[in-house]
Amino acid sequence: MTDTAGRRYIDFLAGCSSLNYGHNDPDMKAALIDHIAGDGIAHGLDMHTEAKGAFIETFEANILKPRDMDHKLMFVGPTGANAVEAAMKIARKATGRTNVIAFTNGFHGVTQGALAATGNSYHRGGAGTTLNNVTRMPYDGYMGAEFDTCDLLAAMLKDASSGMDAPAAILLETVQGEGGLNAASPEWIARVAQLARDHGALLIIDDIQAGCGRTGSFFSFDEMGITPDIVTLAKSVSGFGLPMGLVLVRPEHDVMGPAEHNGTFRGNTHAFVTARVAIQKFWSDGRLQEDVSRRAAMVEDGLKTIAAMIPGAYLKGRGMMRGVDVGSGDLAGNICAHAFCEGLIVETSGPNDEVVKILAPLTISDATLGKGLNILIDAARSVTSNFKVAAE
Amino acid sequence: MTDTAGRRYIDFLAGCSSLNYGHNDPDMKAALIDHIAGDGIAHGLDMHTEAKGAFIETFEANILKPRDMDHKLMFVGPTGANAVEAAMKIARKATGRTNVIAFTNGFHGVTQGALAATGNSYHRGGAGTTLNNVTRMPYDGYMGAEFDTCDLLAAMLKDASSGMDAPAAILLETVQGEGGLNAASPEWIARVAQLARDHGALLIIDDIQAGCGRTGSFFSFDEMGITPDIVTLAKSVSGFGLPMGLVLVRPEHDVMGPAEHNGTFRGNTHAFVTARVAIQKFWSDGRLQEDVSRRAAMVEDGLKTIAAMIPGAYLKGRGMMRGVDVGSGDLAGNICAHAFCEGLIVETSGPNDEVVKILAPLTISDATLGKGLNILIDAARSVTSNFKVAAE
Amino acid sequence: MTDTAGRRYIDFLAGCSSLNYGHNDPDMKAALIDHIAGDGIAHGLDMHTEAKGAFIETFEANILKPRDMDHKLMFVGPTGANAVEAAMKIARKATGRTNVIAFTNGFHGVTQGALAATGNSYHRGGAGTTLNNVTRMPYDGYMGAEFDTCDLLAAMLKDASSGMDAPAAILLETVQGEGGLNAASPEWIARVAQLARDHGALLIIDDIQAGCGRTGSFFSFDEMGITPDIVTLAKSVSGFGLPMGLVLVRPEHDVMGPAEHNGTFRGNTHAFVTARVAIQKFWSDGRLQEDVSRRAAMVEDGLKTIAAMIPGAYLKGRGMMRGVDVGSGDLAGNICAHAFCEGLIVETSGPNDEVVKILAPLTISDATLGKGLNILIDAARSVTSNFKVAAE
Amino acid sequence: MTDTAGRRYIDFLAGCSSLNYGHNDPDMKAALIDHIAGDGIAHGLDMHTEAKGAFIETFEANILKPRDMDHKLMFVGPTGANAVEAAMKIARKATGRTNVIAFTNGFHGVTQGALAATGNSYHRGGAGTTLNNVTRMPYDGYMGAEFDTCDLLAAMLKDASSGMDAPAAILLETVQGEGGLNAASPEWIARVAQLARDHGALLIIDDIQAGCGRTGSFFSFDEMGITPDIVTLAKSVSGFGLPMGLVLVRPEHDVMGPAEHNGTFRGNTHAFVTARVAIQKFWSDGRLQEDVSRRAAMVEDGLKTIAAMIPGAYLKGRGMMRGVDVGSGDLAGNICAHAFCEGLIVETSGPNDEVVKILAPLTISDATLGKGLNILIDAARSVTSNFKVAAE
Repeated sequence: MTDTAGRRYIDFLAGCSSLNYGHNDPDMKAALIDHIAGDGIAHGLDMHTEAKGAFIETFEANILKPRDMDHKLMFVGPTGANAVEAAMKIARKATGRTNVIAFTNGFHGVTQGALAATGNSYHRGGAGTTLNNVTRMPYDGYMGAEFDTCDLLAAMLKDASSGMDAPAAILLETVQGEGGLNAASPEWIARVAQLARDHGALLIIDDIQAGCGRTGSFFSFDEMGITPDIVTLAKSVSGFGLPMGLVLVRPEHDVMGPAEHNGTFRGNTHAFVTARVAIQKFWSDGRLQEDVSRRAAMVEDGLKTIAAMIPGAYLKGRGMMRGVDVGSGDLAGNICAHAFCEGLIVETSGPNDEVVKILAPLTISDATLGKGLNILIDAARSVTSNFKVAAE
Repeated sequence: MTDTAGRRYIDFLAGCSSLNYGHNDPDMKAALIDHIAGDGIAHGLDMHTEAKGAFIETFEANILKPRDMDHKLMFVGPTGANAVEAAMKIARKATGRTNVIAFTNGFHGVTQGALAATGNSYHRGGAGTTLNNVTRMPYDGYMGAEFDTCDLLAAMLKDASSGMDAPAAILLETVQGEGGLNAASPEWIARVAQLARDHGALLIIDDIQAGCGRTGSFFSFDEMGITPDIVTLAKSVSGFGLPMGLVLVRPEHDVMGPAEHNGTFRGNTHAFVTARVAIQKFWSDGRLQEDVSRRAAMVEDGLKTIAAMIPGAYLKGRGMMRGVDVGSGDLAGNICAHAFCEGLIVETSGPNDEVVKILAPLTISDATLGKGLNILIDAARSVTSNFKVAAE
Repeated sequence: MTDTAGRRYIDFLAGCSSLNYGHNDPDMKAALIDHIAGDGIAHGLDMHTEAKGAFIETFEANILKPRDMDHKLMFVGPTGANAVEAAMKIARKATGRTNVIAFTNGFHGVTQGALAATGNSYHRGGAGTTLNNVTRMPYDGYMGAEFDTCDLLAAMLKDASSGMDAPAAILLETVQGEGGLNAASPEWIARVAQLARDHGALLIIDDIQAGCGRTGSFFSFDEMGITPDIVTLAKSVSGFGLPMGLVLVRPEHDVMGPAEHNGTFRGNTHAFVTARVAIQKFWSDGRLQEDVSRRAAMVEDGLKTIAAMIPGAYLKGRGMMRGVDVGSGDLAGNICAHAFCEGLIVETSGPNDEVVKILAPLTISDATLGKGLNILIDAARSVTSNFKVAAE
Repeated sequence: MTDTAGRRYIDFLAGCSSLNYGHNDPDMKAALIDHIAGDGIAHGLDMHTEAKGAFIETFEANILKPRDMDHKLMFVGPTGANAVEAAMKIARKATGRTNVIAFTNGFHGVTQGALAATGNSYHRGGAGTTLNNVTRMPYDGYMGAEFDTCDLLAAMLKDASSGMDAPAAILLETVQGEGGLNAASPEWIARVAQLARDHGALLIIDDIQAGCGRTGSFFSFDEMGITPDIVTLAKSVSGFGLPMGLVLVRPEHDVMGPAEHNGTFRGNTHAFVTARVAIQKFWSDGRLQEDVSRRAAMVEDGLKTIAAMIPGAYLKGRGMMRGVDVGSGDLAGNICAHAFCEGLIVETSGPNDEVVKILAPLTISDATLGKGLNILIDAARSVTSNFKVAAE
């Protein structure tokens, strides 16, 4: 990336995970220019267009079939929040229940239905009204390693006097991107999935930030032995940063009538064009996945180096959605600011912004990644030295 | 008590704790007949009447002053649910917040505001609409002895991304009468009180069932070192089983305007007459409290005898609000049915009716109490023998 | 009535219509003293007691049978608000819908469910939270004589895009007691009843203030050719001012499970005793109804005299639930204050307290009624003269 | 437009008013290809980008300044529903109130907050939960020409016992696009604006469908003498059919904190590029407005011809957002089907699909427009002849 003054930056933010394949991938760019130059339709409401058909075919062949997933694709308004709203509506309509179980530090968007499931009080405060029909439960690890928070969920679901109304859905991110890169264990997620099944609730995995390869495989829940009833995708699904929202729903829960959840921009054809290319280019074989695995290890090593400088610091997240909790928002902010001066775009995360968070493009070269990590390590070293000096 | 066939029963139910002083106490009866015969006002809306004035004076002198409590008396509609509704409204208006924290297995009434705080799904299902603006937390002991549920409450209150909206109030019973006689420890309650204070929430103790001497002292929270912002009373406060609801509120939270929470029957003068006598007779000295202490020990001994017969059975509750969890609703029901045949009225409690619950009048004679306990012990012996025979 | 200084008053308030049969009726008094002296049960939860049985029998024989009403009696917590809460819950459970249609200036109580249906913003403001699931429609006459507000109700019910969700119930008072003595015409009420039937909604008549003879017949909707699905009663139903709430519900809508809408004081036996006497004494023949008819005419004449003194003043209400709208809360308040000095208790009503409201006991003697009316007329004359003088 | 079989169609739908400037305008297309080919940023979160800056400057210079509007531009998630959600949140936060007044047949989107304001029961039914905090009022003309529905709004706002909670906002479309092309009169709108001001509510004009020139001028409320506090735009604002949502808010109500209403795709740079071109090309002078005025007259003439064929039929809408209510969904559907066979894309609207609706591109040539109108007139003639034959 280059700023208006011509300065170049390494990007460890990737548009909050909406640019997993980097900026302006040449193949997507070419396909998009072709489409526009050839007077392809830009806007198709919910009608079938060639670009939409080609995307569906590609997605089913490369993503769903290999995983034995029979989910239907539902195109929603081109935002993640819209996908979450649609998912909650489907679950409520399919089950005839209203309560949705969501978790501490979950982030699912800021429109009213999605905002009720979002934990952050700053965003919730913007509603100007009460946010209801969501029961909040502690996420994996919320009470430390000794207490399995699933035990509480199981106890309240089983107890007819717990005050927890029968849930339409359990909604969760496998890694909480905005909530501080908390990664739930596969065992905890599998147990939640089982509880959902046992209690007649739909399991919704919000894979808007953690999906599209961010944690290593296409879905963040691959190889966990679960099949979510509903999956929400947005951010990187178009591959090029274009607005697109997608809901995957198992056929038996596909209860919405035609245009019942409607919207003008469900047929953003430009996004379909780039999304198709993204799937074909990156997910028709295992190369990207191998690259991500290797790069994730580099990120882990880099963050471990930083953690070693700061007493109490520890790593968070999974795959290429990693960070280091440095214990203080001030410290994390200082490290990022230092890194920015040296040409690295990197942000903080967590309830108190105490996590230095790395969301590099998955396609970043190993060399650039290494360079960026060194900048970050140097920034951490410099800031922690100053802290020590100040403390003496 | 005598039934229509002239049979006499010992009462271990006491009108669900609304007849703590037994049926038809002679002094209350005499005062009430005097009042009616003298054409005293039966119904006074919210106007000041002599009967009301006398009750207030007596209550303040004998209950509030000795405890250094400066609470105002607010007369509400003559039901417990109405007292809880008023308490929740006061807390919301005083704090400008809407969220109320309530607990698993709590029972606070079935009108819509109170029902939102009640845990029981059977009652909640009667609402026919969603019940909102309440966050449910696990009560003391809900996850076993090793996990202090206050830790979760504290963590969620502190965490700005927990999704728990800032609470107007924390609402709890010190012993959950309908929820299975769960008694919270004084330490847990004191910690909840401190958390309420730290986070700007009002502490509401719902003492409708556990108050008026049921646990030994007048309030169930006496000698716990806490001062609730609001206390709700009903059931035994009139002493004679007459409908009466009362809210005690600290002066700084007395935010309701005149008749803002109104109702026709807030001035049930008959109840004021008997309520005054009840306070004067039973709470102007320490005799009842001593009696209750002795009788509570008798109840405990009796229940221990029963618990010893049943593997896994254990005692619940506090004071003269005790029971034994026998592990199965069938077994508990059988014991109560057997006891009824032998002339003892006793009921089950708990989410699955697995607790045999004793709510004898506080004024029951030691002899009658002993007789009732023996009937219950015999019933338990008889039922458990049959169970064993059946099992062999 | 006599105050603490020994002064005697004529009562034109009748405990807000909860003392329709006056204070301390001797027959009810005798029966109640007998009951108490004979150690009758004071408090019966929801068990069948002799007093309850006798009341039910009397009510069915004298009230329901003559009207061919097959409604079940449901005893609820002893307040009007509790009756309304129960009625709304029944309607929602029976229809599987949540929306309740209520009207401008309706008053139905201040617990959360009932408060949502109450129009008054002062009371609504006390909730401290949003009040929902009620659609508000203009009451009869709200937009003047030319516009039938039923047309709007009909149009919105029929229009699938009106935004009015299918209603569980339409809830109304035939005369709005707190809202300014607005009396709906029989034609309007019959049309609302038909609309409810056509659209699958239950018709709930809240007869808490207008029922028990207040408008002339026992129910305020007698002789309108309608059969409400649910009727709520409280206030004067016990006859003696004792707390009692009652819901009448047609058998096909009797959907509540045992104790699903529970409460400690549903079995206020004292109230059953006096309620039975009230029905037997006043409603086993047509004498009271004739008396009320004659006295209502006296009230009407008196109010007309007052209206004639004040430009723009007009009569409101029906039966012995009458008033005169004098156009200004100040003026109405002054008249009442003057009357009070002369020994008459009378109150204002209406959104701006602009209605001088007469709710005399139905059993008031013609002589006392006449005397009271004269005091009120004199007060009005005196106040209006002063107003004129002041204006000159 | 050309279908997959190579057939050409005239488009009287214009992507539901999201393609006001037609498909693939060459100038926007060129600018967009330039941007992409030059590796411009596709996705900018909420950061300042060149494309965004250029759009803001152009919009302020050509749209806001000439109208003396001082509104701030708030970029929201790229859907109309998201713009409405943001507008409602702003109004609630700015006023500290929750109630929003919306109108019969209004359509504002299907995410939970916006859906509460939408009237259509089919869409509302998809929520799976109750939709609250919105009061529904009849739109202009809802009760016929004799009754000014503003009178009801005014009466309920003024009456403290009406049950209408003080509103945060009054939200309306000047022409209801989905609700049947109901056009409110300027007088009615001006009165609503005044009522909003008098009662401390914000006026939100949802100009998503009616704005961007559709009714003749850029905003649908131009020349009505009102200044809305908030305006929502989407659909045609990007000019090219690309997803974009925009909220205009007066500075004194700009209460949202940074990212309080956030979202990944608020910075859809491609849309900024085409949106800038659209404003420069079509709104820097009065030519388009003149064209639209002339074409609107042609549409009106055409529709009058059709209306004359059908007893009771009448015109609806305003500008180039017009239709004819033919009294029956079947008839309207038949006309559109016939027209489609002859190469015209045209749709129905209204609660019962009884309106044949013309939403031609504003930039359509007079010749093509005339041709399309002739097809529609012929279709109507053919269908109504058949109807008559069938009826004989």
